[in-house]
Amino acid sequence: MATKNETPEQRFASLCKALTLLKSEDEIRRFLIDLCTPGEIKDFGERWLIARLLAAGDMSYREISAETGASTTTVGRVARFLEQEPHQGYKAILERLK
Amino acid sequence: MATKNETPEQRFASLCKALTLLKSEDEIRRFLIDLCTPGEIKDFGERWLIARLLAAGDMSYREISAETGASTTTVGRVARFLEQEPHQGYKAILERLK
Repeated sequence: MATKNETPEQRFASLCKALTLLKSEDEIRRFLIDLCTPGEIKDFGERWLIARLLAAGDMSYREISAETGASTTTVGRVARFLEQEPHQGYKAILERLK
Repeated sequence: MATKNETPEQRFASLCKALTLLKSEDEIRRFLIDLCTPGEIKDFGERWLIARLLAAGDMSYREISAETGASTTTVGRVARFLEQEPHQGYKAILERLK
């Protein structure tokens, strides 16, 4: 189940696989609270809000920065992952939430 | 779908809800790569490996630290969440992986 010689890539693959086993919002919440620091959880919530506000399309980077408290650098970084990076992980889930 | 006035708690709840919509290991991988920095992904993979090694029960904190490259403070923190905190998020998933 765990091998101490796992590479960082294998560790991440194991984590992604583990997350597929979590079925409810409450299970996911409890797992993330164990896995992440409070600061990380705050950052992820902020980035996810920024992604949703960007996808809604009616606010500028500066407005989103002012409203969320995130820096415009953070807003720009989320926008890059939303629009330009090949993973399309934000996009997939935002499409599903429509 | 997104409200700029969301509290940190509401942002986190929205993120947890979004994660329930991801069905495959590949979807989860792509979402986490969009959401997290490379450093965060490395840290999470490390913590998750530590949790699995602790659950296996045949290595000391010091051995786990030496083998994974994590500090003993990190190993102790993962152990605390695994054993003592009330969320039991690690435990739930480790039970399911047995």
